Amino acid sequence: MRTVYVNGEYLPENEAKISIFDRGFLMADGVYEVTSVLDGKLIDFDGHSKRLERSLNELDMPHPAVLPDLLEVHRELVRLNGIEEGMIYLQITRGAPGDRDFVFPDPETTAPTVVLFTQNKPGLADSPAAKKGIKVISIEDARWARRDIKTVQLLYPSMGKMMAKAAGVDDAWMVEDGFVTEGTSNNAYIVKGNTIITRHLGNEILHGITRAAVLRFAREAQMQVEERSFTIDEAKDADEAFITSASTFVMPVVEIDGAQVGEGTPGSVATRLREIYLDESRKAAV
Amino acid sequence: MRTVYVNGEYLPENEAKISIFDRGFLMADGVYEVTSVLDGKLIDFDGHSKRLERSLNELDMPHPAVLPDLLEVHRELVRLNGIEEGMIYLQITRGAPGDRDFVFPDPETTAPTVVLFTQNKPGLADSPAAKKGIKVISIEDARWARRDIKTVQLLYPSMGKMMAKAAGVDDAWMVEDGFVTEGTSNNAYIVKGNTIITRHLGNEILHGITRAAVLRFAREAQMQVEERSFTIDEAKDADEAFITSASTFVMPVVEIDGAQVGEGTPGSVATRLREIYLDESRKAAV
Repeated sequence: MRTVYVNGEYLPENEAKISIFDRGFLMADGVYEVTSVLDGKLIDFDGHSKRLERSLNELDMPHPAVLPDLLEVHRELVRLNGIEEGMIYLQITRGAPGDRDFVFPDPETTAPTVVLFTQNKPGLADSPAAKKGIKVISIEDARWARRDIKTVQLLYPSMGKMMAKAAGVDDAWMVEDGFVTEGTSNNAYIVKGNTIITRHLGNEILHGITRAAVLRFAREAQMQVEERSFTIDEAKDADEAFITSASTFVMPVVEIDGAQVGEGTPGSVATRLREIYLDESRKAAV
Repeated sequence: MRTVYVNGEYLPENEAKISIFDRGFLMADGVYEVTSVLDGKLIDFDGHSKRLERSLNELDMPHPAVLPDLLEVHRELVRLNGIEEGMIYLQITRGAPGDRDFVFPDPETTAPTVVLFTQNKPGLADSPAAKKGIKVISIEDARWARRDIKTVQLLYPSMGKMMAKAAGVDDAWMVEDGFVTEGTSNNAYIVKGNTIITRHLGNEILHGITRAAVLRFAREAQMQVEERSFTIDEAKDADEAFITSASTFVMPVVEIDGAQVGEGTPGSVATRLREIYLDESRKAAV
């Protein structure tokens, strides 16, 4: 049984509950982060903390008192649950004002809800999927307009995963106005020659923490990076494709809408970037 | 202290809790309905039940075992809380599978979560706002694409209410591609001469239960109804404007983006429709 964190308390997971009046439950008024754990240490913790703070600010959500101590809470959960490889999920909502109202509750009387829990995933780094690559389909991007804020409005991404499952593949890339935005829970990339192409930042996509690190490592390794939109047709025609996220790191994509990408096996750029990302992230883990 | 309903139990509201792993909390994977109570009876209960079932079906969400007994649960909550005028809020989520995963949980092992609670609102029908009318601003519609499904993804409507509040008005009308979709939690109408104009049904707006009833009453009263898109400019230039929802019934709108609508007072069509709607709904209440 996991030990989880709810509003200052470390509790057995089956006792971890929140009020039915929590705005995370009633109105999807919450933000989250997922941080990976390798060798019992936190990957890119600083990046996730900064993005969390940005999400809170963009939604005028009060900062919970525990915010400066979140590193400690993360570490305590890693210790209590003996996590060597896995993830820590963190969610902050605008709290439980005791009734339902579209108007934000008064932050003086309603404190944010803070929930964290671990997910133990032995073999996360040495993933068999990374050796084989994953397959994706394209679907329409039907999400709200502010995907740069990491909110818990994940119903459509969840539906997207189910569409992928129904199609016998691993994930879906979302397309808006003819251009790929991102995967259901990851950023999307293609490779042409020595150039890595991934959508530019904006409100349309999540500002991936892993994305930022991977692009930095790519540039340091003298690869070309173009931050621009691309179509599914361009992706099918690319030499390689891949995704990045906190929990999949760099994951090759070998098929898009039934069409083989490149040789239909993980490409050298994605494979190399995965190695670099894992090496560098382990070194910098806290 | 209210008595609320959570998964088969009637509980004091401060003991009403759900798991942190509930998909309503983690992924906004839930739907809801709000039914008004007048004279201690339920308004349009049948319409809300049918829409609830449609929402569940659209999301491939399993039907909770209590579904056929929801009228009884509503009535019991009205009785236990002595509600003469007010609302009953109902939420169903895909349940708490015990961990977080984008993939839907197996309905064989994860039952939906069902939550209901009352909101006591004496004077709901005899609302002072209805005599004065409300003011709205227009804002961009930044919601997801399936607004016909009544999901708990209400963060943007909630932000819209705060934008309205910041502008010193009561609500916001959302605009997409130049045309009004709807209010933050209501359908939007304008009146030109003897013609009531409101957006046609589609994925872009909620299929309001009150909307359906009001349009039926309007047609029965020999008023013309045009179901089509309209712009904010057309609305400003209209003779009247109003909104409908389960909890505001028919509510006149007297100002849009600072411009007075008609005489700047509740119009005769909206006033008459409110009377008809309240009369007929009280008669048909269960």
